[in-house]
Amino acid sequence: MEIAGPTELLAYRLVGRELTSTATLVEVRGRRVGDGFFGLIAGPCTVETREQTLETARAVAEAGATILRGGAFKPRTSPYAFQGLGLKGLEILAEAREETGLPIVTELLDPRDVEAVAEVADVIQIGARNMQNFNLLAEVGRLPKPVLLKRAPSATIEELLMAAEYVAKEGNARVMLCERGIKTFERATRYTLDLSAVPVLKRETHLPVIVDPSHAAGRSDLVLPLARAAVAAGADGVMIEVHPQPEDALCDGPQQIRIGDFARFADEVTKIVALMGKTVG
Amino acid sequence: MEIAGPTELLAYRLVGRELTSTATLVEVRGRRVGDGFFGLIAGPCTVETREQTLETARAVAEAGATILRGGAFKPRTSPYAFQGLGLKGLEILAEAREETGLPIVTELLDPRDVEAVAEVADVIQIGARNMQNFNLLAEVGRLPKPVLLKRAPSATIEELLMAAEYVAKEGNARVMLCERGIKTFERATRYTLDLSAVPVLKRETHLPVIVDPSHAAGRSDLVLPLARAAVAAGADGVMIEVHPQPEDALCDGPQQIRIGDFARFADEVTKIVALMGKTVG
Amino acid sequence: MEIAGPTELLAYRLVGRELTSTATLVEVRGRRVGDGFFGLIAGPCTVETREQTLETARAVAEAGATILRGGAFKPRTSPYAFQGLGLKGLEILAEAREETGLPIVTELLDPRDVEAVAEVADVIQIGARNMQNFNLLAEVGRLPKPVLLKRAPSATIEELLMAAEYVAKEGNARVMLCERGIKTFERATRYTLDLSAVPVLKRETHLPVIVDPSHAAGRSDLVLPLARAAVAAGADGVMIEVHPQPEDALCDGPQQIRIGDFARFADEVTKIVALMGKTVG
Amino acid sequence: MEIAGPTELLAYRLVGRELTSTATLVEVRGRRVGDGFFGLIAGPCTVETREQTLETARAVAEAGATILRGGAFKPRTSPYAFQGLGLKGLEILAEAREETGLPIVTELLDPRDVEAVAEVADVIQIGARNMQNFNLLAEVGRLPKPVLLKRAPSATIEELLMAAEYVAKEGNARVMLCERGIKTFERATRYTLDLSAVPVLKRETHLPVIVDPSHAAGRSDLVLPLARAAVAAGADGVMIEVHPQPEDALCDGPQQIRIGDFARFADEVTKIVALMGKTVG
Repeated sequence: MEIAGPTELLAYRLVGRELTSTATLVEVRGRRVGDGFFGLIAGPCTVETREQTLETARAVAEAGATILRGGAFKPRTSPYAFQGLGLKGLEILAEAREETGLPIVTELLDPRDVEAVAEVADVIQIGARNMQNFNLLAEVGRLPKPVLLKRAPSATIEELLMAAEYVAKEGNARVMLCERGIKTFERATRYTLDLSAVPVLKRETHLPVIVDPSHAAGRSDLVLPLARAAVAAGADGVMIEVHPQPEDALCDGPQQIRIGDFARFADEVTKIVALMGKTVG
Repeated sequence: MEIAGPTELLAYRLVGRELTSTATLVEVRGRRVGDGFFGLIAGPCTVETREQTLETARAVAEAGATILRGGAFKPRTSPYAFQGLGLKGLEILAEAREETGLPIVTELLDPRDVEAVAEVADVIQIGARNMQNFNLLAEVGRLPKPVLLKRAPSATIEELLMAAEYVAKEGNARVMLCERGIKTFERATRYTLDLSAVPVLKRETHLPVIVDPSHAAGRSDLVLPLARAAVAAGADGVMIEVHPQPEDALCDGPQQIRIGDFARFADEVTKIVALMGKTVG
Repeated sequence: MEIAGPTELLAYRLVGRELTSTATLVEVRGRRVGDGFFGLIAGPCTVETREQTLETARAVAEAGATILRGGAFKPRTSPYAFQGLGLKGLEILAEAREETGLPIVTELLDPRDVEAVAEVADVIQIGARNMQNFNLLAEVGRLPKPVLLKRAPSATIEELLMAAEYVAKEGNARVMLCERGIKTFERATRYTLDLSAVPVLKRETHLPVIVDPSHAAGRSDLVLPLARAAVAAGADGVMIEVHPQPEDALCDGPQQIRIGDFARFADEVTKIVALMGKTVG
Repeated sequence: MEIAGPTELLAYRLVGRELTSTATLVEVRGRRVGDGFFGLIAGPCTVETREQTLETARAVAEAGATILRGGAFKPRTSPYAFQGLGLKGLEILAEAREETGLPIVTELLDPRDVEAVAEVADVIQIGARNMQNFNLLAEVGRLPKPVLLKRAPSATIEELLMAAEYVAKEGNARVMLCERGIKTFERATRYTLDLSAVPVLKRETHLPVIVDPSHAAGRSDLVLPLARAAVAAGADGVMIEVHPQPEDALCDGPQQIRIGDFARFADEVTKIVALMGKTVG
């Protein structure tokens, strides 16, 4: 009575473990993710102003973050919502990198922006809504930059692996996979963080696995327990949203943790990273 | 305990019923969908060959289809699956139109293909995977062509309306919305066709609402009962996949109905269309 | 990568089509459901008062309902919500039957109430929350009364068939299956009515299939379009909640249609029943 | 456009944090769960034979388990599957307790079995399928025994709290809540373990929160990483299935870990328990 599942045709040869047994280590500006190294990715949801971004970047750098996140192009459900600063946002991110030394991960939305984004980004993010934007995947597959690929909230783990395969097939196998919550009936959280995906992915693929508890929960009070859980489940990194005044954020305020709380967050997470035998990279 | 829902910011002003009370009628090459007219959209999942496409086009035209569907650019979960004939496929569709007189609906995947697709397509399809590809939505919002916008399998009805608002905001309000199944835990069908979406959408928006039972069910034996149900729920059209030999189809064979079965299908559906006081357009 | 599905062990021998090819016809007090006969089941969500129940019973009987529904024992999410009139409610239902001649369907919650409920009920309802209360299923499997078995909002179609098999295994094969919505991420409706379940069930089993659009939608404005769709999908009956003043109902007011609207509802549904070649029984 | 959520009527007064600010500590035969004490609950899915049960009980006791689990009455999807040893199973569990000193948690399915089960069980389990069997909840609410209440795979966190309130309302507030996976579209695991539920529950209620990764994953290889993650998310205990020969188990073999692997499992989990400042009770 069951509809046929994926066929052999759908194998993920390059990102699977059959051909490649060693774990992939992604290195960028001296920072490392995977193969025993843990990525502590933090920063604002969105680049709103120069001040907000630099203040956040300094704070997370000081507290031990290894990569700075921040959105310049923001995909928003409504056409009337703030869509990000675009190129101006990229400039601010570049300045934050210069000041803190942290590599930058930022999202690419449109194949026509590849060059502009690649000029600033150290890691190119493909957002959840574009996980199956196959032409965009092929574009970043041809870049000499690591990719952070977010799981769509309705994608199976297998579909995520297939999306990574689109990138790898073009020659770029430096892909980090990111679980950020799936859509379910539960309403206490925005999405349901699927932490089972972490050990499943670790078994299926040699790529690093990152967890984003901020988007999944949609509530800042759950970010620390879920980040801890992600590490304990075997994740190679977490990605966290931080803001100087979350209550004034232009986007996703309730899920961003306060700058002042990030140092304790980093400490707590680092303890479990150590227990798991990994090193913050 | 519940996460905040959409705010007022997220209203869909242009596609909602508040400002526009009359139903939108989409006309294309003399065929009509909406405002009492029913669209019977049929054709192959994918343009595979000239023969397969022309044979299918003739059969559905003769049986009363009003619009011909067919994919030239195919988004596929696996990078190793058949990706469509591309430009060559568009040429074949143009020939099918010339021969049958039926307007063509075909999918646009990449903003860089807008011109090529718009040259042939009478209606531009935005597929489920691109429902929140906001730059692509803006592109088709600037075209003088109707758009068929498919609901993503994880999108709420509200998110679908927001996506349509992206198109309308650029000046193109000739958008047809298409329900094609959402992801649930049920495994007897590929997706779960959400027919409640039809009356909900009819109440919320003035745009025509189409239902695609072929993709939702993933099984050809369910296509007729679900198409009937869609009409009875108030849909303004159905979109059906038809193939000369479904067992040999390069894509989605199990859900395509056989050419020879389409005439009966059209008859059965038309009876309910009439009962609902509508006219096949 | 997929978890193993149901094994052969899990077959539904008695309710499946392999051994029994003819459709099951359930007859009760001269009313028929299945094998070409359509059940129009209507009544209050809950028996609140003698007056409310009798008034509703008369109205739905006059408008053509064939079976009267009404809850005496109500399973409620909160222990502080109204739990039904219990035995007193059964007495009121018996009086409504005497006056209208309509057979009664009402819910059994506890195996210890079997005798009391069976004394009044013509059809025993097993509610969605008890679909896998296997001891309760076995109890009603030993009664000489038809059973209306509701699908749990998280049950697969296969699990529903297995639950029916529990009843049939004890000797009672007069089971009507009822689809009433599954839990999904969509929030515009309370549950998502899975109308694909109707043709899937009709293919898998010889038992009658009923649809309850009231509970599924949770909104009275969707009840008519969804009931129509259910008939068009092949359902053998619908079950509808009706109330004299829905705004004052003690339970589920927003989903109950007004007494005065039921006659038009019955007319509209009957037209599609006729088109489908069935007879309201 | 959204259906109304739960009203004030649906508050969980007794199990919520408003009236009771201190964490509930459940003590049973000297073992403790909650308020800083961690429960390591382990044992066979089902009591199959005296030998299998005693062998497992000894092994988990020696490795540090604090409570022994084991099913005597098994709810099974199919009426043709093994339904448990019933009363005979309870006797075997009593013998295992005598030998190991471990308190017993076992499931109650039917209100008519309350006395028989309560005679042997130290903790009464209400299974996921009975989470909203409100009469059964009221029964155990009148017992002088702790209750382990499993979340149904389609229940919201709020519904779980309401179910606990049914028990507490009858006078028994010694309820442990158990997350064991919810139904989603993902197919790599049997259910999706909702670890966000742990911190959400810890914030909403003073009751202990247990996690069952065995049922959630349906695969033994995920049990350790998910158990670790549960502890790191703040759980007060885990419940694990263990079997001498999982490949020969009469029920749920693929999710049971081997006796010989349990000692390492307990060690690994205990490290995180300590890091979280808790003590295995």
